[in-house]
Amino acid sequence: MLSVTILGNNSAVPAFDRHPTSQVVTLDGNNYLVDCGEGTQIQMIKYKIRRGKISHIFISHLHGDHYFGLVGLINSFGLLSHQQDLHVFGPSPLQEIVELQLRVAKTVLPFNLYFHTINKEGILYEDSKIEVRCFPTNHRIECYGFSFREKKLPRKIDVDKVKAAEIPASFYKKLEEGMDYTTKNDVLIKNETVTIEAPKGRSYVFCADTKYDESLLPHLYDADMIYHETTYLDNLKEKAIERFHSTSSHAAMIAKKGRVKKLLIGHFSSKYAELDEFEKEARVVFENTEIALEGVAYAV
Amino acid sequence: MLSVTILGNNSAVPAFDRHPTSQVVTLDGNNYLVDCGEGTQIQMIKYKIRRGKISHIFISHLHGDHYFGLVGLINSFGLLSHQQDLHVFGPSPLQEIVELQLRVAKTVLPFNLYFHTINKEGILYEDSKIEVRCFPTNHRIECYGFSFREKKLPRKIDVDKVKAAEIPASFYKKLEEGMDYTTKNDVLIKNETVTIEAPKGRSYVFCADTKYDESLLPHLYDADMIYHETTYLDNLKEKAIERFHSTSSHAAMIAKKGRVKKLLIGHFSSKYAELDEFEKEARVVFENTEIALEGVAYAV
Repeated sequence: MLSVTILGNNSAVPAFDRHPTSQVVTLDGNNYLVDCGEGTQIQMIKYKIRRGKISHIFISHLHGDHYFGLVGLINSFGLLSHQQDLHVFGPSPLQEIVELQLRVAKTVLPFNLYFHTINKEGILYEDSKIEVRCFPTNHRIECYGFSFREKKLPRKIDVDKVKAAEIPASFYKKLEEGMDYTTKNDVLIKNETVTIEAPKGRSYVFCADTKYDESLLPHLYDADMIYHETTYLDNLKEKAIERFHSTSSHAAMIAKKGRVKKLLIGHFSSKYAELDEFEKEARVVFENTEIALEGVAYAV
Repeated sequence: MLSVTILGNNSAVPAFDRHPTSQVVTLDGNNYLVDCGEGTQIQMIKYKIRRGKISHIFISHLHGDHYFGLVGLINSFGLLSHQQDLHVFGPSPLQEIVELQLRVAKTVLPFNLYFHTINKEGILYEDSKIEVRCFPTNHRIECYGFSFREKKLPRKIDVDKVKAAEIPASFYKKLEEGMDYTTKNDVLIKNETVTIEAPKGRSYVFCADTKYDESLLPHLYDADMIYHETTYLDNLKEKAIERFHSTSSHAAMIAKKGRVKKLLIGHFSSKYAELDEFEKEARVVFENTEIALEGVAYAV
Protein backbone atom coordinates (compact mmCIF):
# COMPACT_ATOMS: atom_id res chain seq x y z
CA MET A 1 0.00 0.00 0.00
CA LEU A 2 1.21 3.49 -0.86
CA SER A 3 0.94 6.11 1.88
CA VAL A 4 2.49 9.39 2.96
CA THR A 5 3.19 10.44 6.55
CA ILE A 6 3.55 14.15 7.25
CA LEU A 7 6.46 15.10 9.57
CA GLY A 8 6.30 18.85 9.00
CA ASN A 9 3.55 21.04 7.55
CA ASN A 10 4.89 24.52 8.25
CA SER A 11 6.89 26.93 6.13
CA ALA A 12 10.12 28.70 7.06
CA VAL A 13 10.09 29.44 10.81
CA PRO A 14 8.78 26.75 13.20
CA ALA A 15 5.64 27.93 15.03
CA PHE A 16 2.59 26.65 16.89
CA ASP A 17 4.31 23.27 17.28
CA ARG A 18 4.38 22.95 13.49
CA HIS A 19 7.64 21.92 11.87
CA PRO A 20 9.39 22.57 8.56
CA THR A 21 8.72 20.35 5.55
CA SER A 22 9.34 16.62 5.61
CA GLN A 23 7.27 13.65 4.51
CA VAL A 24 7.75 9.91 4.38
CA VAL A 25 6.31 8.06 1.39
CA THR A 26 5.87 4.38 2.23
CA LEU A 27 5.35 1.48 -0.17
CA ASP A 28 5.44 -2.13 1.01
CA GLY A 29 7.59 -1.35 4.03
CA ASN A 30 10.10 0.86 2.22
CA ASN A 31 10.31 4.50 3.28
CA TYR A 32 11.22 7.29 0.88
CA LEU A 33 11.98 10.58 2.58
CA VAL A 34 10.84 13.79 0.87
CA ASP A 35 12.56 16.93 2.17
CA CYS A 36 14.20 17.09 5.58
CA GLY A 37 13.72 20.36 7.47
CA GLU A 38 15.45 20.99 10.80
CA GLY A 39 14.28 18.55 13.47
CA THR A 40 13.10 15.86 11.03
CA GLN A 41 15.03 13.17 12.90
CA ILE A 42 13.28 14.20 16.11
CA GLN A 43 9.89 14.06 14.38
CA MET A 44 10.80 10.58 13.12
CA ILE A 45 11.38 9.40 16.69
CA LYS A 46 8.13 11.01 17.83
CA TYR A 47 6.08 9.37 15.10
CA LYS A 48 7.94 6.03 15.17
CA ILE A 49 9.15 6.14 11.58
CA ARG A 50 11.45 3.21 10.88
CA ARG A 51 14.63 5.06 10.04
CA GLY A 52 16.35 1.84 9.01
CA LYS A 53 13.90 1.54 6.12
CA ILE A 54 15.08 4.77 4.49
CA SER A 55 17.58 4.39 1.69
CA HIS A 56 16.42 7.19 -0.64
CA ILE A 57 16.03 10.85 0.28
CA PHE A 58 14.67 13.44 -2.14
CA ILE A 59 15.34 17.15 -1.47
CA SER A 60 13.18 19.57 -3.46
CA HIS A 61 15.29 22.72 -3.09
CA LEU A 62 17.87 24.43 -0.93
CA HIS A 63 15.77 26.73 1.20
CA GLY A 64 16.66 25.79 4.77
CA ASP A 65 13.17 24.73 5.84
CA HIS A 66 13.43 21.88 3.33
CA TYR A 67 16.89 20.47 4.09
CA PHE A 68 18.59 21.85 7.24
CA GLY A 69 17.84 18.54 9.01
CA LEU A 70 19.57 16.43 6.36
CA VAL A 71 23.16 16.54 7.59
CA GLY A 72 22.03 15.73 11.14
CA LEU A 73 19.98 12.79 9.93
CA ILE A 74 22.89 11.41 7.89
CA ASN A 75 25.21 11.92 10.88
CA SER A 76 22.79 10.05 13.14
CA PHE A 77 22.47 7.20 10.64
CA GLY A 78 26.24 6.91 11.02
CA LEU A 79 26.14 6.94 14.82
CA LEU A 80 23.32 4.39 14.76
CA SER A 81 25.53 2.11 12.64
CA HIS A 82 23.30 1.96 9.59
CA GLN A 83 24.82 -0.36 6.99
CA GLN A 84 22.74 0.02 3.84
CA ASP A 85 23.58 2.43 1.03
CA LEU A 86 21.96 5.84 1.25
CA HIS A 87 21.03 7.76 -1.90
CA VAL A 88 20.36 11.48 -1.69
CA PHE A 89 18.79 13.36 -4.60
CA GLY A 90 18.73 17.15 -4.72
CA PRO A 91 19.90 20.25 -6.56
CA SER A 92 23.51 21.42 -6.48
CA PRO A 93 25.41 22.24 -4.24
CA LEU A 94 23.69 19.94 -1.72
CA GLN A 95 26.51 17.44 -1.92
CA GLU A 96 29.15 20.10 -1.24
CA ILE A 97 27.20 21.45 1.76
CA VAL A 98 26.76 18.05 3.40
CA GLU A 99 30.22 16.71 2.61
CA LEU A 100 31.93 19.85 3.94
CA GLN A 101 30.21 19.40 7.30
CA LEU A 102 30.97 15.67 7.49
CA ARG A 103 34.62 16.30 6.57
CA VAL A 104 35.11 19.05 9.17
CA ALA A 105 33.84 16.72 11.91
CA LYS A 106 36.09 13.91 10.59
CA THR A 107 32.96 11.80 10.25
CA VAL A 108 33.45 8.27 8.94
CA LEU A 109 30.11 6.83 7.86
CA PRO A 110 29.63 3.05 8.13
CA PHE A 111 27.61 3.04 4.89
CA ASN A 112 28.00 4.31 1.34
CA LEU A 113 26.51 7.74 0.75
CA TYR A 114 25.66 8.57 -2.85
CA PHE A 115 24.58 11.99 -4.05
CA HIS A 116 22.59 12.41 -7.24
CA THR A 117 22.36 15.96 -8.48
CA ILE A 118 18.98 16.92 -9.89
CA ASN A 119 19.10 19.47 -12.67
CA LYS A 120 16.24 18.49 -14.96
CA GLU A 121 12.97 16.62 -15.18
CA GLY A 122 13.23 12.83 -15.34
CA ILE A 123 13.26 9.48 -13.58
CA LEU A 124 15.28 9.52 -10.35
CA TYR A 125 14.69 5.99 -9.19
CA GLU A 126 12.82 2.87 -10.14
CA ASP A 127 12.57 -0.73 -9.13
CA SER A 128 9.98 -3.44 -9.73
CA LYS A 129 7.46 -1.66 -7.48
CA ILE A 130 7.88 2.08 -7.82
CA GLU A 131 8.99 4.84 -10.11
CA VAL A 132 10.07 8.21 -8.74
CA ARG A 133 10.28 11.16 -11.11
CA CYS A 134 11.11 14.82 -10.60
CA PHE A 135 9.84 17.90 -12.38
CA PRO A 136 10.68 21.60 -12.01
CA THR A 137 8.30 23.84 -10.07
CA ASN A 138 8.09 27.63 -10.21
CA HIS A 139 9.86 28.96 -7.11
CA ARG A 140 12.42 31.67 -6.22
CA ILE A 141 15.30 29.23 -6.54
CA GLU A 142 15.72 25.98 -8.46
CA CYS A 143 13.07 23.63 -7.10
CA TYR A 144 11.63 20.22 -7.99
CA GLY A 145 8.46 18.29 -7.27
CA PHE A 146 8.45 14.50 -7.04
CA SER A 147 5.98 11.90 -8.30
CA PHE A 148 5.76 8.44 -6.82
CA ARG A 149 4.02 5.91 -9.04
CA GLU A 150 3.40 2.37 -8.03
CA LYS A 151 4.18 0.09 -10.94
CA LYS A 152 1.29 -1.79 -12.46
CA LEU A 153 1.28 -5.33 -11.11
CA PRO A 154 1.45 -8.28 -13.55
CA ARG A 155 -1.82 -9.76 -14.80
CA LYS A 156 -3.32 -12.33 -12.44
CA ILE A 157 -3.99 -15.90 -13.44
CA ASP A 158 -7.70 -16.79 -13.46
CA VAL A 159 -7.23 -20.24 -11.91
CA ASP A 160 -10.49 -21.79 -13.04
CA LYS A 161 -10.12 -20.65 -16.63
CA VAL A 162 -6.48 -21.64 -16.85
CA LYS A 163 -7.31 -25.12 -15.57
CA ALA A 164 -10.26 -25.43 -17.93
CA ALA A 165 -7.99 -24.54 -20.83
CA GLU A 166 -5.45 -27.10 -19.60
CA ILE A 167 -2.56 -24.64 -19.69
CA PRO A 168 0.48 -26.15 -17.92
CA ALA A 169 1.69 -24.43 -14.71
CA SER A 170 5.11 -23.90 -16.33
CA PHE A 171 3.47 -21.32 -18.62
CA TYR A 172 1.84 -19.29 -15.80
CA LYS A 173 4.70 -16.79 -15.55
CA LYS A 174 4.42 -16.02 -19.26
CA LEU A 175 0.67 -15.58 -18.89
CA GLU A 176 1.33 -13.02 -16.14
CA GLU A 177 3.60 -11.19 -18.55
CA GLY A 178 0.75 -11.00 -21.05
CA MET A 179 1.62 -13.78 -23.52
CA ASP A 180 -0.97 -15.86 -25.35
CA TYR A 181 -0.89 -19.67 -25.19
CA THR A 182 -1.07 -22.09 -28.08
CA THR A 183 -2.23 -25.63 -27.33
CA LYS A 184 -0.67 -28.78 -28.77
CA ASN A 185 -3.56 -28.79 -31.26
CA ASP A 186 -2.63 -25.29 -32.39
CA VAL A 187 -5.58 -23.59 -30.72
CA LEU A 188 -4.70 -20.02 -29.71
CA ILE A 189 -5.86 -19.06 -26.21
CA LYS A 190 -5.78 -15.27 -25.94
CA ASN A 191 -4.18 -14.04 -22.75
CA GLU A 192 -7.04 -11.80 -21.70
CA THR A 193 -9.43 -14.76 -21.70
CA VAL A 194 -7.54 -16.55 -18.90
CA THR A 195 -5.99 -13.69 -16.89
CA ILE A 196 -7.27 -10.69 -14.97
CA GLU A 197 -5.80 -7.23 -15.35
CA ALA A 198 -4.16 -5.92 -12.17
CA PRO A 199 -5.48 -2.65 -10.82
CA LYS A 200 -3.64 0.46 -11.93
CA GLY A 201 -0.75 1.43 -9.63
CA ARG A 202 -1.42 4.27 -7.16
CA SER A 203 0.30 7.62 -7.55
CA TYR A 204 1.29 10.45 -5.21
CA VAL A 205 2.74 13.76 -6.33
CA PHE A 206 4.57 16.19 -4.06
CA CYS A 207 4.48 19.62 -5.68
CA ALA A 208 7.15 21.22 -3.44
CA ASP A 209 7.26 25.02 -3.15
CA THR A 210 5.76 26.77 -6.15
CA LYS A 211 3.63 29.61 -7.33
CA TYR A 212 0.45 28.74 -9.22
CA ASP A 213 1.69 27.24 -12.46
CA GLU A 214 -0.35 25.10 -14.85
CA SER A 215 2.82 23.71 -16.39
CA LEU A 216 2.84 21.36 -13.37
CA LEU A 217 -0.38 19.70 -14.56
CA PRO A 218 1.13 17.06 -16.89
CA HIS A 219 3.21 15.78 -13.98
CA LEU A 220 0.28 15.28 -11.64
CA TYR A 221 -2.61 14.65 -14.02
CA ASP A 222 -5.01 11.94 -12.78
CA ALA A 223 -2.91 11.26 -9.65
CA ASP A 224 -4.60 9.56 -6.70
CA MET A 225 -3.26 12.19 -4.31
CA ILE A 226 -1.18 15.32 -4.58
CA TYR A 227 0.37 17.57 -1.96
CA HIS A 228 0.34 21.23 -2.96
CA GLU A 229 1.64 24.06 -0.82
CA THR A 230 -0.74 26.73 0.50
CA THR A 231 1.56 29.14 2.27
CA TYR A 232 -1.13 31.84 2.41
CA LEU A 233 -4.88 32.27 2.45
CA ASP A 234 -6.48 33.85 -0.60
CA ASN A 235 -6.51 37.40 0.76
CA LEU A 236 -2.70 37.35 0.55
CA LYS A 237 -2.66 36.27 -3.08
CA GLU A 238 -0.43 39.19 -4.11
CA LYS A 239 2.11 38.29 -1.44
CA ALA A 240 1.97 34.64 -2.53
CA ILE A 241 2.74 35.58 -6.13
CA GLU A 242 5.53 37.93 -5.09
CA ARG A 243 7.12 35.24 -2.89
CA PHE A 244 6.63 32.45 -5.50
CA HIS A 245 4.20 30.66 -3.20
CA SER A 246 0.55 29.60 -3.53
CA THR A 247 -2.75 30.20 -1.78
CA SER A 248 -5.42 27.68 -0.83
CA SER A 249 -7.45 28.24 -3.97
CA HIS A 250 -4.34 28.15 -6.16
CA ALA A 251 -3.68 24.64 -4.84
CA ALA A 252 -7.31 23.64 -5.26
CA MET A 253 -7.37 24.92 -8.84
CA ILE A 254 -4.33 22.79 -9.70
CA ALA A 255 -5.99 19.74 -8.12
CA LYS A 256 -9.19 20.40 -10.06
CA LYS A 257 -7.55 21.03 -13.42
CA GLY A 258 -5.26 18.02 -12.85
CA ARG A 259 -8.34 15.84 -12.19
CA VAL A 260 -6.63 14.31 -9.17
CA LYS A 261 -8.62 12.35 -6.60
CA LYS A 262 -7.40 13.99 -3.43
CA LEU A 263 -5.52 17.12 -2.39
CA LEU A 264 -3.37 17.52 0.71
CA ILE A 265 -2.39 21.07 1.62
CA GLY A 266 0.46 22.31 3.80
CA HIS A 267 3.53 24.58 4.10
CA PHE A 268 1.52 27.07 6.11
CA SER A 269 2.98 30.45 6.91
CA SER A 270 3.95 30.98 10.54
CA LYS A 271 1.55 33.91 10.67
CA TYR A 272 -1.41 31.52 10.95
CA ALA A 273 -2.24 30.00 14.33
CA GLU A 274 -5.40 28.34 13.00
CA LEU A 275 -5.57 26.31 9.79
CA ASP A 276 -9.29 25.60 9.28
CA GLU A 277 -9.72 28.48 6.87
CA PHE A 278 -7.23 26.92 4.43
CA GLU A 279 -9.37 23.81 4.08
CA LYS A 280 -12.54 25.87 3.80
CA GLU A 281 -11.16 28.05 1.02
CA ALA A 282 -9.70 25.13 -0.92
CA ARG A 283 -12.91 23.08 -0.70
CA VAL A 284 -14.88 25.79 -2.45
CA VAL A 285 -12.86 24.88 -5.55
CA PHE A 286 -11.93 21.25 -4.87
CA GLU A 287 -14.02 19.30 -2.39
CA ASN A 288 -11.69 16.43 -1.54
CA THR A 289 -9.08 18.57 0.21
CA GLU A 290 -7.44 17.83 3.55
CA ILE A 291 -5.03 19.71 5.78
CA ALA A 292 -1.77 17.74 5.99
CA LEU A 293 -1.48 17.06 9.72
CA GLU A 294 1.84 16.17 11.31
CA GLY A 295 2.07 12.57 12.42
CA VAL A 296 -0.83 11.44 10.23
CA ALA A 297 -0.31 8.77 7.56
CA TYR A 298 -2.52 9.37 4.51
CA ALA A 299 -3.32 6.33 2.37
CA VAL A 300 -2.89 7.20 -1.30
CA MET B 1 21.81 38.01 38.00
CA LEU B 2 23.83 35.44 36.09
CA SER B 3 22.04 32.23 35.12
CA VAL B 4 22.18 29.44 32.59
CA THR B 5 19.20 27.73 30.96
CA ILE B 6 19.73 24.28 29.49
CA LEU B 7 18.14 23.70 26.06
CA GLY B 8 19.81 20.37 25.31
CA ASN B 9 21.58 17.91 27.58
CA ASN B 10 22.17 14.98 25.26
CA SER B 11 25.11 13.96 23.13
CA ALA B 12 25.12 13.08 19.44
CA VAL B 13 21.80 11.42 18.53
CA PRO B 14 18.57 12.83 20.04
CA ALA B 15 16.90 10.28 22.34
CA PHE B 16 14.41 10.00 25.22
CA ASP B 17 13.18 13.50 24.44
CA ARG B 18 16.65 14.86 25.16
CA HIS B 19 18.20 17.22 22.67
CA PRO B 20 21.71 18.06 21.47
CA THR B 21 23.80 20.68 23.27
CA SER B 22 22.64 24.26 23.67
CA GLN B 23 22.55 26.62 26.64
CA VAL B 24 21.54 30.21 27.20
CA VAL B 25 23.65 32.25 29.62
CA THR B 26 21.67 35.25 30.87
CA LEU B 27 22.99 38.37 32.58
CA ASP B 28 20.78 41.38 33.22
CA GLY B 29 18.37 40.52 30.42
CA ASN B 30 21.02 39.77 27.80
CA ASN B 31 21.15 36.25 26.42
CA TYR B 32 24.40 34.62 25.28
CA LEU B 33 23.90 31.40 23.37
CA VAL B 34 26.39 28.57 23.91
CA ASP B 35 26.31 25.90 21.20
CA CYS B 36 23.32 25.34 18.96
CA GLY B 37 22.51 21.70 18.18
CA GLU B 38 19.73 20.78 15.75
CA GLY B 39 16.33 21.93 16.99
CA THR B 40 17.67 24.66 19.29
CA GLN B 41 15.26 27.22 17.83
CA ILE B 42 12.37 24.88 18.60
CA GLN B 43 13.62 24.42 22.17
CA MET B 44 13.81 28.22 22.47
CA ILE B 45 10.15 28.52 21.56
CA LYS B 46 9.23 25.72 23.98
CA TYR B 47 11.08 27.32 26.88
CA LYS B 48 10.17 30.91 26.00
CA ILE B 49 13.73 32.16 25.52
CA ARG B 50 13.72 35.73 24.26
CA ARG B 51 15.40 35.25 20.91
CA GLY B 52 15.54 39.01 20.33
CA LYS B 53 17.93 39.29 23.28
CA ILE B 54 20.58 37.15 21.61
CA SER B 55 23.38 39.02 19.89
CA HIS B 56 26.34 36.74 20.69
CA ILE B 57 26.57 33.04 19.90
CA PHE B 58 29.53 30.89 20.95
CA ILE B 59 30.12 27.54 19.22
CA SER B 60 32.54 25.19 20.98
CA HIS B 61 33.37 22.86 18.09
CA LEU B 62 32.13 21.54 14.78
CA HIS B 63 30.61 18.22 15.74
CA GLY B 64 27.05 18.39 14.47
CA ASP B 65 25.35 18.00 17.84
CA HIS B 66 26.86 21.35 18.84
CA TYR B 67 26.04 23.49 15.80
CA PHE B 68 23.68 21.92 13.22
CA GLY B 69 20.91 24.24 14.47
CA LEU B 70 22.92 27.42 13.92
CA VAL B 71 22.15 28.08 10.27
CA GLY B 72 18.44 27.52 10.87
CA LEU B 73 18.46 29.92 13.82
CA ILE B 74 20.25 32.63 11.82
CA ASN B 75 17.84 32.07 8.93
CA SER B 76 14.86 32.42 11.29
CA PHE B 77 16.31 35.59 12.82
CA GLY B 78 16.24 36.94 9.27
CA LEU B 79 12.65 35.86 8.61
CA LEU B 80 11.61 37.31 11.98
CA SER B 81 13.13 40.65 10.91
CA HIS B 82 15.74 40.93 13.64
CA GLN B 83 17.62 44.19 13.32
CA GLN B 84 20.50 44.05 15.77
CA ASP B 85 24.00 42.87 14.89
CA LEU B 86 24.69 39.19 15.44
CA HIS B 87 28.18 37.99 16.42
CA VAL B 88 29.06 34.33 16.02
CA PHE B 89 32.24 32.91 17.55
CA GLY B 90 33.53 29.46 16.61
CA PRO B 91 36.34 27.50 15.04
CA SER B 92 37.00 27.53 11.30
CA PRO B 93 35.36 26.78 8.88
CA LEU B 94 32.08 27.66 10.63
CA GLN B 95 31.76 30.89 8.66
CA GLU B 96 32.23 29.09 5.34
CA ILE B 97 29.62 26.45 6.25
CA VAL B 98 26.97 28.98 7.25
CA GLU B 99 27.65 31.49 4.48
CA LEU B 100 27.56 28.81 1.79
CA GLN B 101 24.07 27.78 2.89
CA LEU B 102 22.79 31.35 3.12
CA ARG B 103 24.23 32.17 -0.30
CA VAL B 104 22.69 29.12 -2.00
CA ALA B 105 19.24 30.13 -0.71
CA LYS B 106 19.85 33.73 -1.84
CA THR B 107 19.17 34.78 1.76
CA VAL B 108 19.36 38.49 2.48
CA LEU B 109 19.59 39.06 6.24
CA PRO B 110 18.11 42.27 7.64
CA PHE B 111 20.96 42.53 10.18
CA ASN B 112 24.75 42.45 10.14
CA LEU B 113 26.22 39.01 10.74
CA TYR B 114 29.81 38.95 12.00
CA PHE B 115 31.88 35.82 12.33
CA HIS B 116 34.83 35.67 14.72
CA THR B 117 37.08 32.68 14.23
CA ILE B 118 38.38 31.13 17.44
CA ASN B 119 41.81 29.58 17.17
CA LYS B 120 43.39 30.19 20.55
CA GLU B 121 42.68 30.95 24.18
CA GLY B 122 41.67 34.54 24.99
CA ILE B 123 38.96 37.12 25.51
CA LEU B 124 36.13 36.84 22.98
CA TYR B 125 33.85 39.58 24.26
CA GLU B 126 33.61 42.10 27.06
CA ASP B 127 31.50 45.04 28.06
CA SER B 128 30.97 46.86 31.33
CA LYS B 129 29.16 43.86 32.81
CA ILE B 130 30.67 40.65 31.48
CA GLU B 131 33.80 39.10 30.12
CA VAL B 132 33.65 35.99 27.94
CA ARG B 133 36.84 34.01 27.41
CA CYS B 134 37.59 30.79 25.56
CA PHE B 135 40.10 28.06 26.28
CA PRO B 136 40.97 24.84 24.43
CA THR B 137 39.59 21.54 25.72
CA ASN B 138 40.89 18.07 24.92
CA HIS B 139 38.58 16.56 22.30
CA ARG B 140 38.83 14.67 19.01
CA ILE B 141 38.66 17.86 16.99
CA GLU B 142 39.51 21.48 17.82
CA CYS B 143 37.21 22.44 20.70
CA TYR B 144 36.84 25.34 23.14
CA GLY B 145 35.25 25.91 26.51
CA PHE B 146 33.84 29.32 27.48
CA SER B 147 33.98 31.22 30.75
CA PHE B 148 31.45 33.94 31.61
CA ARG B 149 32.62 36.29 34.35
CA GLU B 150 30.50 39.07 35.68
CA LYS B 151 32.66 42.15 36.09
CA LYS B 152 33.29 43.32 39.62
CA LEU B 153 31.03 46.27 40.36
CA PRO B 154 32.59 49.61 41.48
CA ARG B 155 33.10 50.23 45.21
CA LYS B 156 29.99 51.58 46.91
CA ILE B 157 29.93 54.93 48.73
CA ASP B 158 29.33 54.56 52.49
CA VAL B 159 27.00 57.55 52.73
CA ASP B 160 27.34 58.20 56.46
CA LYS B 161 31.11 58.07 56.43
CA VAL B 162 31.46 60.20 53.31
CA LYS B 163 29.25 62.87 54.84
CA ALA B 164 31.09 62.74 58.15
CA ALA B 165 34.37 63.27 56.27
CA GLU B 166 32.78 66.17 54.36
CA ILE B 167 33.83 64.82 50.96
CA PRO B 168 32.08 66.79 48.18
CA ALA B 169 29.57 64.90 45.98
CA SER B 170 31.63 65.85 42.90
CA PHE B 171 34.31 63.43 44.13
CA TYR B 172 31.98 60.43 44.61
CA LYS B 173 32.67 58.96 41.19
CA LYS B 174 36.41 58.96 41.89
CA LEU B 175 35.76 57.29 45.25
CA GLU B 176 33.87 54.54 43.41
CA GLU B 177 36.89 54.08 41.19
CA GLY B 178 39.04 53.56 44.31
CA MET B 179 40.78 56.94 44.66
CA ASP B 180 41.74 58.42 48.03
CA TYR B 181 40.58 61.95 49.00
CA THR B 182 42.72 64.74 50.36
CA THR B 183 40.95 67.48 52.31
CA LYS B 184 41.69 71.20 51.99
CA ASN B 185 43.75 70.82 55.15
CA ASP B 186 45.86 68.13 53.52
CA VAL B 187 44.39 65.26 55.50
CA LEU B 188 44.45 62.03 53.49
CA ILE B 189 41.22 60.03 53.71
CA LYS B 190 41.95 56.51 52.50
CA ASN B 191 39.35 55.18 50.06
CA GLU B 192 38.62 51.97 51.96
CA THR B 193 37.60 53.97 55.05
CA VAL B 194 34.63 55.60 53.25
CA THR B 195 33.61 52.99 50.61
CA ILE B 196 32.41 49.39 50.64
CA GLU B 197 33.83 46.76 48.35
CA ALA B 198 31.30 45.36 45.87
CA PRO B 199 30.76 41.63 45.96
CA LYS B 200 32.90 39.61 43.56
CA GLY B 201 31.30 39.04 40.14
CA ARG B 202 29.79 35.61 39.57
CA SER B 203 31.34 33.16 37.12
CA TYR B 204 30.12 30.27 34.98
CA VAL B 205 32.36 28.01 32.94
CA PHE B 206 31.15 25.75 30.13
CA CYS B 207 33.76 23.03 29.61
CA ALA B 208 32.39 21.80 26.25
CA ASP B 209 33.32 18.30 25.06
CA THR B 210 36.54 17.04 26.58
CA LYS B 211 38.32 14.10 28.06
CA TYR B 212 39.52 14.40 31.65
CA ASP B 213 42.25 17.02 31.52
CA GLU B 214 43.61 18.98 34.46
CA SER B 215 44.97 21.66 32.13
CA LEU B 216 41.38 22.99 32.17
CA LEU B 217 41.68 23.82 35.88
CA PRO B 218 43.19 27.32 35.59
CA HIS B 219 40.24 28.36 33.41
CA LEU B 220 37.59 27.27 35.89
CA TYR B 221 39.36 27.59 39.24
CA ASP B 222 37.09 28.96 41.98
CA ALA B 223 34.14 29.41 39.58
CA ASP B 224 30.66 29.64 41.05
CA MET B 225 29.35 27.03 38.63
CA ILE B 226 30.79 24.89 35.88
CA TYR B 227 29.17 22.60 33.33
CA HIS B 228 31.24 19.54 32.56
CA GLU B 229 30.25 16.81 30.19
CA THR B 230 29.57 13.28 31.46
CA THR B 231 28.91 11.33 28.31
CA TYR B 232 29.34 7.99 30.10
CA LEU B 233 29.04 6.42 33.51
CA ASP B 234 32.26 5.28 35.18
CA ASN B 235 32.08 1.68 34.02
CA LEU B 236 32.64 2.96 30.46
CA LYS B 237 35.76 4.92 31.40
CA GLU B 238 37.86 3.23 28.71
CA LYS B 239 35.32 4.13 26.05
CA ALA B 240 35.20 7.72 27.37
CA ILE B 241 38.97 8.06 27.07
CA GLU B 242 39.00 6.49 23.62
CA ARG B 243 36.25 8.87 22.41
CA PHE B 244 37.79 11.96 24.12
CA HIS B 245 34.80 12.21 26.45
CA SER B 246 34.41 12.14 30.24
CA THR B 247 32.62 10.09 32.88
CA SER B 248 30.65 11.31 35.89
CA SER B 249 33.60 10.99 38.25
CA HIS B 250 35.95 12.63 35.75
CA ALA B 251 33.68 15.69 35.82
CA ALA B 252 33.39 15.59 39.60
CA MET B 253 37.16 15.36 40.00
CA ILE B 254 37.63 18.47 37.85
CA ALA B 255 35.00 20.31 39.94
CA LYS B 256 36.72 19.23 43.16
CA LYS B 257 40.26 20.07 42.07
CA GLY B 258 39.02 23.36 40.61
CA ARG B 259 37.40 24.23 43.97
CA VAL B 260 34.25 25.34 42.19
CA LYS B 261 31.02 25.83 44.09
CA LYS B 262 28.64 23.87 41.90
CA LEU B 263 28.83 21.32 39.10
CA LEU B 264 26.25 20.79 36.36
CA ILE B 265 26.60 17.61 34.33
CA GLY B 266 25.22 16.79 30.89
CA HIS B 267 25.95 15.61 27.33
CA PHE B 268 24.62 12.17 28.18
CA SER B 269 25.08 9.34 25.74
CA SER B 270 21.90 8.17 23.99
CA LYS B 271 22.46 4.71 25.43
CA TYR B 272 21.14 5.91 28.83
CA ALA B 273 17.38 6.13 29.37
CA GLU B 274 17.79 7.01 33.06
CA LEU B 275 20.18 9.66 34.37
CA ASP B 276 20.07 9.29 38.18
CA GLU B 277 23.19 7.17 38.28
CA PHE B 278 25.26 10.04 36.81
CA GLU B 279 24.41 12.28 39.72
CA LYS B 280 24.99 9.50 42.22
CA GLU B 281 28.44 8.69 40.87
CA ALA B 282 29.51 12.32 40.65
CA ARG B 283 28.32 13.13 44.18
CA VAL B 284 30.63 10.50 45.65
CA VAL B 285 33.49 12.78 44.56
CA PHE B 286 31.81 16.21 44.53
CA GLU B 287 28.65 16.68 46.55
CA ASN B 288 27.19 19.81 44.95
CA THR B 289 26.45 18.20 41.58
CA GLU B 290 23.25 18.48 39.59
CA ILE B 291 21.96 16.92 36.40
CA ALA B 292 21.50 19.68 33.79
CA LEU B 293 17.79 19.39 32.99
CA GLU B 294 16.34 20.81 29.79
CA GLY B 295 14.20 23.87 30.32
CA VAL B 296 15.62 24.59 33.77
CA ALA B 297 17.37 27.90 34.51
CA TYR B 298 20.20 27.49 37.03
CA ALA B 299 21.22 30.58 38.98
CA VAL B 300 25.00 30.91 39.04
